[in-house]
Formats: sequence, structure tokens, C-alpha cells
Amino acid sequence: MFTHTHALQYEAKPDGPDAAFARRMQEILGGQWGEMTVATQYLLQGWNCRLPGKYKDMLLAIGTEELAHVEMIVTMIDRLLDHQPLKPDAADRSKEAAAGFGTTNPQHAIVNGGGAYYRDSMGLPWSGGYVTASGNLMADFHYNATAEMMGRLQVARLYNMTDDPGVKEMFKFLIARDHMHQMQWLAAIEELKADGLEGIPVPEAFPLEEEPADYGYAFIDASDGPDAAAGRWASGPAGDGRGTFSARPIEATADAPILPPGDPRLFGTPQSDTKNLLQKAKDLLT
Amino acid sequence: MFTHTHALQYEAKPDGPDAAFARRMQEILGGQWGEMTVATQYLLQGWNCRLPGKYKDMLLAIGTEELAHVEMIVTMIDRLLDHQPLKPDAADRSKEAAAGFGTTNPQHAIVNGGGAYYRDSMGLPWSGGYVTASGNLMADFHYNATAEMMGRLQVARLYNMTDDPGVKEMFKFLIARDHMHQMQWLAAIEELKADGLEGIPVPEAFPLEEEPADYGYAFIDASDGPDAAAGRWASGPAGDGRGTFSARPIEATADAPILPPGDPRLFGTPQSDTKNLLQKAKDLLT
Amino acid sequence: MFTHTHALQYEAKPDGPDAAFARRMQEILGGQWGEMTVATQYLLQGWNCRLPGKYKDMLLAIGTEELAHVEMIVTMIDRLLDHQPLKPDAADRSKEAAAGFGTTNPQHAIVNGGGAYYRDSMGLPWSGGYVTASGNLMADFHYNATAEMMGRLQVARLYNMTDDPGVKEMFKFLIARDHMHQMQWLAAIEELKADGLEGIPVPEAFPLEEEPADYGYAFIDASDGPDAAAGRWASGPAGDGRGTFSARPIEATADAPILPPGDPRLFGTPQSDTKNLLQKAKDLLT
Amino acid sequence: MFTHTHALQYEAKPDGPDAAFARRMQEILGGQWGEMTVATQYLLQGWNCRLPGKYKDMLLAIGTEELAHVEMIVTMIDRLLDHQPLKPDAADRSKEAAAGFGTTNPQHAIVNGGGAYYRDSMGLPWSGGYVTASGNLMADFHYNATAEMMGRLQVARLYNMTDDPGVKEMFKFLIARDHMHQMQWLAAIEELKADGLEGIPVPEAFPLEEEPADYGYAFIDASDGPDAAAGRWASGPAGDGRGTFSARPIEATADAPILPPGDPRLFGTPQSDTKNLLQKAKDLLT
Amino acid sequence: MFTHTHALQYEAKPDGPDAAFARRMQEILGGQWGEMTVATQYLLQGWNCRLPGKYKDMLLAIGTEELAHVEMIVTMIDRLLDHQPLKPDAADRSKEAAAGFGTTNPQHAIVNGGGAYYRDSMGLPWSGGYVTASGNLMADFHYNATAEMMGRLQVARLYNMTDDPGVKEMFKFLIARDHMHQMQWLAAIEELKADGLEGIPVPEAFPLEEEPADYGYAFIDASDGPDAAAGRWASGPAGDGRGTFSARPIEATADAPILPPGDPRLFGTPQSDTKNLLQKAKDLLT
Amino acid sequence: MFTHTHALQYEAKPDGPDAAFARRMQEILGGQWGEMTVATQYLLQGWNCRLPGKYKDMLLAIGTEELAHVEMIVTMIDRLLDHQPLKPDAADRSKEAAAGFGTTNPQHAIVNGGGAYYRDSMGLPWSGGYVTASGNLMADFHYNATAEMMGRLQVARLYNMTDDPGVKEMFKFLIARDHMHQMQWLAAIEELKADGLEGIPVPEAFPLEEEPADYGYAFIDASDGPDAAAGRWASGPAGDGRGTFSARPIEATADAPILPPGDPRLFGTPQSDTKNLLQKAKDLLT
Repeated sequence: MFTHTHALQYEAKPDGPDAAFARRMQEILGGQWGEMTVATQYLLQGWNCRLPGKYKDMLLAIGTEELAHVEMIVTMIDRLLDHQPLKPDAADRSKEAAAGFGTTNPQHAIVNGGGAYYRDSMGLPWSGGYVTASGNLMADFHYNATAEMMGRLQVARLYNMTDDPGVKEMFKFLIARDHMHQMQWLAAIEELKADGLEGIPVPEAFPLEEEPADYGYAFIDASDGPDAAAGRWASGPAGDGRGTFSARPIEATADAPILPPGDPRLFGTPQSDTKNLLQKAKDLLT
Repeated sequence: MFTHTHALQYEAKPDGPDAAFARRMQEILGGQWGEMTVATQYLLQGWNCRLPGKYKDMLLAIGTEELAHVEMIVTMIDRLLDHQPLKPDAADRSKEAAAGFGTTNPQHAIVNGGGAYYRDSMGLPWSGGYVTASGNLMADFHYNATAEMMGRLQVARLYNMTDDPGVKEMFKFLIARDHMHQMQWLAAIEELKADGLEGIPVPEAFPLEEEPADYGYAFIDASDGPDAAAGRWASGPAGDGRGTFSARPIEATADAPILPPGDPRLFGTPQSDTKNLLQKAKDLLT
Repeated sequence: MFTHTHALQYEAKPDGPDAAFARRMQEILGGQWGEMTVATQYLLQGWNCRLPGKYKDMLLAIGTEELAHVEMIVTMIDRLLDHQPLKPDAADRSKEAAAGFGTTNPQHAIVNGGGAYYRDSMGLPWSGGYVTASGNLMADFHYNATAEMMGRLQVARLYNMTDDPGVKEMFKFLIARDHMHQMQWLAAIEELKADGLEGIPVPEAFPLEEEPADYGYAFIDASDGPDAAAGRWASGPAGDGRGTFSARPIEATADAPILPPGDPRLFGTPQSDTKNLLQKAKDLLT
Repeated sequence: MFTHTHALQYEAKPDGPDAAFARRMQEILGGQWGEMTVATQYLLQGWNCRLPGKYKDMLLAIGTEELAHVEMIVTMIDRLLDHQPLKPDAADRSKEAAAGFGTTNPQHAIVNGGGAYYRDSMGLPWSGGYVTASGNLMADFHYNATAEMMGRLQVARLYNMTDDPGVKEMFKFLIARDHMHQMQWLAAIEELKADGLEGIPVPEAFPLEEEPADYGYAFIDASDGPDAAAGRWASGPAGDGRGTFSARPIEATADAPILPPGDPRLFGTPQSDTKNLLQKAKDLLT
Repeated sequence: MFTHTHALQYEAKPDGPDAAFARRMQEILGGQWGEMTVATQYLLQGWNCRLPGKYKDMLLAIGTEELAHVEMIVTMIDRLLDHQPLKPDAADRSKEAAAGFGTTNPQHAIVNGGGAYYRDSMGLPWSGGYVTASGNLMADFHYNATAEMMGRLQVARLYNMTDDPGVKEMFKFLIARDHMHQMQWLAAIEELKADGLEGIPVPEAFPLEEEPADYGYAFIDASDGPDAAAGRWASGPAGDGRGTFSARPIEATADAPILPPGDPRLFGTPQSDTKNLLQKAKDLLT
Repeated sequence: MFTHTHALQYEAKPDGPDAAFARRMQEILGGQWGEMTVATQYLLQGWNCRLPGKYKDMLLAIGTEELAHVEMIVTMIDRLLDHQPLKPDAADRSKEAAAGFGTTNPQHAIVNGGGAYYRDSMGLPWSGGYVTASGNLMADFHYNATAEMMGRLQVARLYNMTDDPGVKEMFKFLIARDHMHQMQWLAAIEELKADGLEGIPVPEAFPLEEEPADYGYAFIDASDGPDAAAGRWASGPAGDGRGTFSARPIEATADAPILPPGDPRLFGTPQSDTKNLLQKAKDLLT
């Protein structure tokens, strides 16, 4: 259960409106790697977590913090949308104005009346499919670490696309939090191993002896790039401590498949009804 | 440029048809973490890679191998779909038949005529949005490691949902390759660091001194789970070697935002046209 | 900014597992009219609201409550998924088991490992496009009232699809809250009018005198159902207090449109490049 | 069954081409609240309606009229797309031309060859998911009233984004029809009540005595906005005539949930197989 | 502009309810190749058609007929949904009932209250992206012919999935219309050629002499299937009457691409900022 | 199984960067009719093909070639994205720069860091739903011919939207291949007929005598365009050699449908529970 305060976790106030940049900022609100994703994902992983204690508690703590970031970005976009130009401005002859108008999002005006929404910078709605909660914490924490890397990367890029000091100030905060959260998930990965809960390869409990022996440690090369096997992934001890990397070209081990004819009630080509085919052949001959 | 052989990298032949399981197997063909995703993702990361040499070559090598896995899974699904029941079978009184019919995918028959397609186990089409190629190899390799964990996890679960020896045999192969590929990406992450190309936090080149000092190493707790700060993510040295984790409750640092009235041409509530509002008020009074 | 407690707003505990019903319950979590929609929608309307005071405050209050309902439904689905059958159970010969297995969602096991996700009962991911925040509170509040009607309707239907007392107990709570929230939005609509902020038709500020006179109060009948004009919408005073309903058959007032030929650089049929056409005609003649 | 005339219900002729505005107009053709939605929605509600007579007849009458609006908007967009610039025009040095080119939709040329399509102003395809037909007319009519409010709002906004007299003329017609249709649905809501078919809360037939008593009339406040309970929704008689609004802060009534361990065959964290966990612990110690 | 009659073009009455088959029938209502697609596609092609006369008139005639088919299929689905089972029926012990319950669409009950909607048999909403109107009639008519083939194929398959005489009767009508419409589009393709409006290859107006000579008539073989060049597509005169088919293996003609380093402001790997890289190397050495 | 070479099938090198055109080119990479579609579609049709020999071999040969085209287009887009402007460039005062900035895709920078992705020119992700493999080769080959027509049409349009010689050079290659592939599929259609595998109408095996006699050869006119029946589709021998085209106006043959009341447990309007309705009526009277 949640409670909310109107005060913000961090200031979200631009020095001036900029509808074109508001459109770009939608990426970190409603894009695949935006704040909606991490907020709803950490909460879902926490609620679904079947292991009581520190991991579950931590997931719900950070998920709740991310909701505050959603709020801050919405607020920033709202303020950037003040005075969004509705038509090319005949009075402002600057090239910047022309460029800016061209790159604004018309839905900000037509649909939202000057407000943010849960879509990315190209107008694609945020999707519940962006959220992953596999039930396996090791897999999920790797995903979470990735999400924070993608998030920090995108904010750092946006940082270089604006000169507005107020926007940059908020971006610094988000960059710092994504910095922390990357380290947090990497620490949690180590802790999962130390606690004996899960290891590499995921899932650790699937018995390695079931794997066909030649395929668990071999780098298989299917392209002619000369350096593909020049990395650590193709020689030396493997990361699970139980085997050694090797390398070899790809090769086929099974014959070309031949499928049986289809069910005649599905009208494919050919049908299994060979009498029908023979009849057709006869018809053609006569 | 590619060339293709009809022979398969590994055998893909079930012991018998099973349309219900064919539907489940769609998840690892056309689902978010299925083979379509990793094949097209590694190829795209390789093509987009602006660093010639081992990383680019390796990406294109593994992406090409994954295309062979797409082919094997399509072939397996096709064979499982032989004799798909079109109606509840009046002759077969077994409960298994009833359960099986209920869980088949009708599109396998109506749309495909007894063949696989690029959708997941609930019929959602595979999406190009599943593919990530950020341009930053450290972020991408963490994503790739995650993808192999999710992939191995899903195949291992499917392994427990069938008794067909032929299907299980192919699953063992896929599980072994996902085992290798997890270790491959984790090795590549270490190599990126060793080569001095990228570190933690991603992107490493964003200057840490720009981050507001209090936020880069603090676990911020927004929930009342008692153990949220009981992990390594809340105390001790941070993973970037430059700071120490701490923990504190969430707190607001900025006032509740107040947005200005909207553009009257957008007809929001309220409009900035205060005269209009006053006039309305007057009308109500008289 | 939010804080979270692990305690639930209301109990979410079924009397026993039921994976088939867990799939059905996804509709009110990740469906168009599910709790994800109302929670994120009310919050967005509140954050975007440019009118400080009671409406904004109320929107953020109810949006925050709805987050607690998301949490309860996730928890209920998780518990219904305990012991989800992975194969048709050879030991249980009951028809209910067969029917149940057929209607479960395989992604609950394969993708989530026994947990809820943000998708509807047919596996379609929740979409940010479900959320409406138009900036006009009168339009939005009508949408909100609709959402609560659809929500209560769906929970009431689900109530008739289960016999589990624990599930039914939580549904009664949700039905009561949707009851309250319907009345809340209808009261807020009246309050908007009383406050002189907005009226009917929305947007009220668009000058009625701009509308072509014959079209603002006429029911236009384009079908041969005999009773189409037998309701209040076709006679008597209109709801805006400024006109009288009338009825008439549909009729065309403008000629059939004729479009000019297309740009020859777009290779449509026909191109505007008539010389080209003439040349073709000539070629055919010779 | 339908018949069609080439003549238009109302003129749809701009004074000149404007590809940038053609892109904006896609919103009211293929957007969530565009004419495709209301046309196909009213027809579906009419076809599905299980109550013969005036409501069903009226739904089919208005749905058929909306098809004529789809046709008019397609025609208008087609004409606005005449002479769509394919490259930045070196001859036209005006800033308007630059701004205009930037904001056009490239698919209008590349995909459609100078024609409209069923997508919104950001290129998102129209979705059958936009259409609601719940079977409950009270809920549906509230949705229909909302749709006409959103529609009129969007056209009124577009009206302020163009100076073309021909476009504005058609917009006035659409604004007038949306005016009429708002009043129509509000009148139909009253008629449903007067006919004793449905009331508030929807569905009326669910017995109110099943609702837990404290939750059907209470405004529950989960945020610190001081005026959240200052509206009619928090005190005074409720709209169903059977209770009185009250207000109170949100509070938890159920303990934090604890989920049992997951099925070991799904490889979650942790598995229920505790022996396995103990063995792992032992392995770590030795 | 359209008018509507409540009478149906053809009877749409099943002999009895069958909720499981109702779900299957959604494919030809809201699936990619269903009636919604052809109705809205032919209308759009007709409205967008810039060539007045027989083609435009024919497109609008057939598009309007297809609307009547949408209506018939909706009506049929509605009737099949009478008495949809809400729970596994304890009284009916038949296996058919179990199988049937498992394969019904729960949204038919929960969302629609016993009615059809614009989604396919797996619950995916119909998409405006299914509709193609390229502006080139030759390309579009090939697509239309395809659509009628896919449509007839799917109805013929469904015909084999039911024993209900009423359903089969309507399917025969749809199969006959799809038969006619296939021939109609193929005839229209010939007429386009005869009228000199468009030929093969589409678009005919692009000058063939611009094509690199070796590539316009060569079958290029990239796989080892021995019979790939054993068809008419690899030898003999080509269909445009201007060249002769040949066959050869695929071969590369351009060097492996090398991309320049990325913009350092985008933080890719590597950045173009080589000084930065050198500094990192130095840091590692000291 | 595939192998890959880094060398390209054809050169993919622009004369200079052009981020605005890079966005337009996404259409032929990740759009409905782009190279991703044909590559994955021909491969899927080949894998699913249940007829060994020339058709299956040819499908896999061309599908593999199309993968090389995906690679070329990705490479071209990558090079066009060099030096993508991140802000309106204050130094470059040209109108072209302004227009260009406005029409770039911000995700190319924010999400991809200067690389291509699998989305279309409006940012919509490529969908597995674009791929059709019906199991009936005649239907599929018509679709394939259409795809090559749409593909050549779009590249020819793009050819007229750029002046870059390097881009135009690659487009000529693609146009030539689409030329060949159109003829290839049309030849394969003839070969299917000659081989007696399938004819018109598709599916040929459905017995024509089952069709209601009046509907298989009649052009039915539902619109008032005067020339709708002036084409070959309305008179003369039909294309299947078994009937003669005729024409007539549309007419209804079945009564307006009346649906029974709904299940009261679904709370529709009206419910079948008439006692309930009577009680309500009584309540209103007293």
C-alpha cells in the first residue's frame, strides 16, 4: 500500500519551455528503458518474490523510489510544454524555431492539451511487455543492471542535447541514481551467489550432465570475421569453473528435414490426399 | 552475406505429434526471449558495431549460429503439428485429449495450415522492439547475458512440461548452447574492462563529479520492509571502487510543483484566459 | 513522491490455487479497464493538472489508492498460481482438471515462473495507450466514470466465475471501491459545472455560433431501424439548454470528390505525367 | 447491410495543400478518439445489442453516419497531400517551408503514394482495442459520451492549428455533430434510467449488501494534498441515493503477504526443494 | 456516405451455441485476413484513388459489400456465445464440454458480456496496419487477390472445424463471395494492363536501364537445396518480355564495411575521442 | 544452418551523412514491406513447406539472399547517421539544416547511439505479424509477388527523395532485385498451375458445387458509382473457366436479426432475468 506527498524527491524545473525537447524526453518516461519500466518492474519482481527478506524488501524499496522519478519527469515535460507552438510562428524568423517546430510531437497538443503521456519519443505507447519478472532473481538482477545502464546511457545522451540548466540539473540527479542502481544490482548478483541461492549458468539447478558434452563450452564460429575467436570467450577456463572454452567452425549434424504432407482439411500444398493429386494429374493429361 | 544449407545444426525430431506442446514452444521461437530475438539482435549489434575486430566478429558469428536455432525450432514445431485435432475427437475419450485440445493454438490450423509462425505462446507477434543495440557494448553485453539466462530458464521449464524424448533431446542442445553463451557474454564483459574500453558505471565517460554527491552511493529506502538495507548494496565499498554505500530513507527535497494555466487554444481546465473565467463567474452570479 | 508499506489495504488470499482463474484475473490487472489503467491514469491526470487545489489533490489521492489495488491483485494471482499444472495430470481424472489445464496461460509458467504480469486475460500486454489525460477535466472525468463502470462490471462478472470464498471476499472490496469511485466522478462532474469551470458541450469555450446551424441539435438517421428516433435524443430540449432536438434522414450535401492525379515521382495510378501516359498508349498502338 | 453514395455528407475541400497539417489530421481519422473508433464502435454496440428497439436502432443509425465522417476526413487528407514535398525545397527559402517539411509524415509518400491511412498523427496504427462494447448500455453510453467529448476537443484544437478556410469549414461541421452526439448520449443515459433498465452504480443488479459496508461511500485519501476531500465527493449524500459520502485516510487492513516457495520445476528463487538448498549450503562450507 | 438496413445480406444463424467455435470465428472478423481488413481496405483504396471511373467505383462497391459481411460474422458470433459456460460445468461430464471450455475466449464473457469484438482468434486486436493502399493499383490489386485467397482458405478450414449446419451455410456464402472476388481482382489486373495504366515490373515507369544489368533477370542461389533453379524462374523468357532468366550462386561484390567511430556525446563503444582512450590505457598501466 | 561473410553482396556507401534520410530509409528495413519481412517470410515458408523439391529449395535460396539485403540497408543507415545533429546547429544557417533536423528520428541517437534498428520510418517496431506463411503456396506466392511490388515501389519513391549518388547506386541494385523477384513469383504461380498443384480459386480443392449458385460469379454493386460494373470483372467468362461474370445490385436476403437476452450473470442490458426487470419496474411505480 502506498502514500504520496506532493513534494518532489528532486527539483524538476526547466529554465524555459522547449516543446521539441519535451518530445525527446518522452523516451525516458515511456520508452522501453524509461522510468515507467523500472518502477513497475521492480515492484512486480518484489510482489512476485517468493523469498521473504532482504531481496524482496529491497525490490519494493527501489520500485517505490522509481515512482518518484516518473513523477519528476512528467512534471518536467509538462513545464517544457508551456507555450507549445501550434503553427509555424510567422513572427519568429529564426532557424531554431523552424527546426524546433518540425520535431515537436503534435499529440502533446492535440491529444494531451499540453501534458506528458506514457509513450516514447516516437509516440509508441509504453508496453507491459517491457517488464520482466522471471521468478529467477539471478536472471532478473542481470536484467535490472542492464536497465540501469541503458537508463543512464540515455539520460547522458539527452544531457548533451539541451542547454537548459534546469533540465541538466535534474538529469544529473537521475544519472547519479542510475549510477547507484547499477552498483546495487551488481552487488545483489554477488550476494545471490554468496548466499548459495543461484549461480552461473542460470538456472544452476538444471543438471549439467544432461547437456551434450561438446556444446557447453565451445565457441562456434559461423562467420568469416578473422578475430571472432580472439577473445577470452574462446579459450581458457570458463566462468562456471567446470570447463574450458574451445572454438570450432559451425557444422551441421542432422539431415535436411522432410516434412510429411499436410492434413487435406487444411488445404495446404500438397495435401496428403494423394488420390486427389493423381486425379488432378490425370485431368491434366486428358 | 549469408549462405544456407538444408542440413540442421542439430536434430529436431519429436517422437510424436503434440499440438498443445507446439503452442507452448512458440514462446522460444517468437517470444521476447526466443531465438528470433537473439539471432536478429546479435547480428544488428555486429553490423552497427563501430569497433572493428574481435567483438564485431564474435557478434556476427554467434548471431549467425542463432539463425540455425530458429530453423531447428520451426522444424520441431512443424512436426509437432502433424495431425493437429480440428475438433474435439469423439473417438478419443481420454482426459489428456480434452486438455490438449483446449490448449492448442487455433491459428496454427486456421492461419498457418499446420506450421510455425513468429509469435509467442499466447499469439502475440514477435516485435522488432525486443531487439536492443545501444551502441555501448558494455550495456549490450549485459543485456545479451540476460537474454541467454532467460532463454535457458524458459527451455529448462519447457523441458519439464513434456515427456517426448525427441523434444527433450533438442532442448538439451539448446540448454548447452545457452550455457556456453551466458559464459561467453560474461567473459566479454570482463574483456571490455581489461581492454579499457568501458567500465562501471555505464557510460564510464560521463564525469562522476557532475553527479550530486549525496546520490551516487546511497541506498534510498521508500518501503517499510525491515531488511531492505541488509544487503551489500547498502554498506561497504561500491563496485566502482570510488565510493562507499550508505542507506537512508527517501525524502523530498523540492516543493510541490504548481503548473501555469494552459494555452486557451487547447481548451484545457483551466485556460489561461482569466477574463473568460471571470465572465463565467459573473454569469453564474446574475 | 511515494512511500510503501508491505501491509495490504485489504486481504488478498484465495482458499486454494486455481491457475485457470489466475489467467482470467489478469483482465483486471493488465486489461484495458484493469487497475494498472486507473492507477497510472489518475496519477497522470493529477500531475498534468494545471489547476491547483481540490481536483488535483483528489486525483493524486485516488491514483495512489489504486496502486494498492494493483498490489492486491498481483498477490492474489501469485497465490492462485501455486502448484500450476505443467502437464495434463495423469492421476487426476476429473473433467474439471482437463478443462482447467486447457484454459491456463502457459506464460505464467514459462515466462514468469509462477507469477502475475502486466497483461490481460488473452496475454496482450498492458499499453500506455489505455491512459487518457486530455487536459480537459470534464472530458477526463467522464472517462474516469466510465472506467469505474467497466471495472465494476468486469469484477462482478468474474465474481460469478469462481466459487473460491477468498477470491470472492476481495472482489466484494473491489466492487465497493468501484461503486464509490463511480459516484465520486459523477459528483466531480457536477462540481466542475457548479464551479463554472466547464460545461456541455465539451469544450464549452468553443463558440457555438461557429457551428453550422442545422447540425448541432439534429439526430440524423442513416439506418432503417424504425425506432431510432423514438428516444429523448430526437425531440425535446437539448441538454445544453440552448436548443431543441430534431430528427431527419441522412443526406449528402457535397458532390462526389474528384482527386487530381498524383505526383509522378510517387508512381501511383495514374501519374500526373500525362505525356508518359500518352507515350504508353502510343506504344500499345504500335 | 449497407449502401454507399459517392456524394459526401459535407464538403471536404481545403483551399490548398498542406502535408504537415495532413499529418496532424490523421489523429482524428486513425487515433484513439478518431472517427474510425466511433463508427466501428457504435456499429458493434448496435449489432451486439440484445435489446431490440430504440437503443439498438439509434446505435446503428449513428454508427452509419460516422462512416460518412471517416470518408470526409480521408478525402480532406488526400487533398492536403497534393504536392507533398519529397525533399527540402531549395527554391523556397521560407522558414514555414522548412518547419513544414520537418513535421510531415514520410509514410504518406513512401507507403501510401500521397494518401491517407488508418494511423494516428504519430504513425501508430488504429487498433480494434480502441473499441468498447461491454454489453452494458449504461457503461457503454458513458464511454460514448466521453468519445464525443474527446473528439470535439481534438477537432477544436486542430481548428486553432490551421488558417485554411476549407479545412475550418469542415471542422465546424464535425464540431457541431460532436456537440449533438454529446447531448445524444447524455440523453440516452437519462432514458436508460427512466426505462428502469440500468442505474448507478453499474451494474445495478449486483446486490449492494454484498459490499463491505465501510468502503462503498468513503473517499480514501492516500496523498497529502490538503484539499483532496474539499469536494462534493467526500461529504453529503451519494449519487445513488442510498448512502452518504465520508472521508478518511488510507489504511492497511491485512498483513504483508508471504508467498510459499515456487515449484522446483520452474527454477525460481528459491525453489521449494529445500534439500537442494541445504546441499548447496553444505557445498559452500566444504 | 452510407445508409444501412437491419436486414442481412445472407442468413447468419447457427443451429446452436458454441462458445469455443465463436472464439475460432474471431479470426475471420478481426484477424489480419478477416472481413474488417477487406472492408476498410477496399474503401480506403477507393477513396484515395486518383483515377475517376470504373476502378474507383468498383472499389467502393465491393468495400461496401464487405461491411455487410462484417455484420453477418458479428451476428453469428453473438449467437454462438449464447449460454457461454462461465465455469467448468459440474453437471456435464462429457469430454467435449471440457475441451470446449478450455478453448473459449474469456474476454467474450468478462469484457464483452457475450458479444463479438474486433480481435482475432488469439485475442490480438485488429490493426489499421493490416490495410494497404499504396496508390499503385497494380500492386494493390495483387494484394487484394491475395487477401481473398487467404480469406477463402481460412473459411474453408473453419468449415472443416464445425458440424453446425447453420454455420456451414453462411460459410458457403462467404466461400462463394471470396471465389468471385479472387476472379474479380485477377480480371482487374488484366484490365489495368490492357488499359495501359500499369505493367510488370511495378512500378513500370521506373526506367529499366537504370538497373544494373546483371541483377534484373538472375536467380541468385544462396542455399544448397539441389532443385532451387529447377523451375521456370531460373531459365527461359522473363515475364516482362524484355529479358531471359538465368541462375548463379550468390557472391559478394563489396568489401566488408568499416564504420567510423561514433560521436563521443553518444557514449558508444568506441568513442571517436581517442585521447580519452589513451588516457584510459595509461591509467591501467600506472 | 547458415554461414556468413563480412563482405557485402553489393556496395552500401553513401557519399555523405544524412540523418533525415536515414530515418526515411528505416521504412525498407523495418516497415511492413521492408527487407526484414521478405527475408524472414521466405525462410519461414521454406521451412514450413511440406512439399520437398524445387519450391522449397527456391524459397530458402531467396530468403537467404534477402538476409544480405537486410545487412546492406543496416550498413547504409549506419553510415548516414554519422555526425547526426544533436541540437539545431547554431552555425549552419541553411534552411535545409533546419528542415533536416526536424525530420530526424531522435531514437537513432538516444536509443541506438547512431545506428539502425528494426522499426519503420515512423518508429513502429517491425512485427512478426507482417509475415505470412499459410501453407498454401498459391496464396503465399501471390503475397510474395505483392511484397516485391510494394518493395520496388517504395525504393523507387525513396530514389526520388535523395540526391546522394551512393545511396542511389544501392537503390538501383535493390530495384533490380525486386524486378527479378516479381517475375520469379509470377513464374512460380504459373508453374504451380502447370504442375497441377493448385489453381484458382484458392483453395481449389474446396468443392465448387457447395457454393450457393448465385454468388460465385456475380459482381454485387453496393455503391452508386456509375462505372462500377464497366470492367471485365462484371461480364464475360470468369478466370476459373467454369462460369460467366454477371452484375447486380446488393440486396438483403435475411431478416434483421433478433438476439436473445444475455446471461444475467454477465450484467448486460437487458438481462434474461425478467423477474428482476419487473421488480425494477414495480419499484419505480411505488
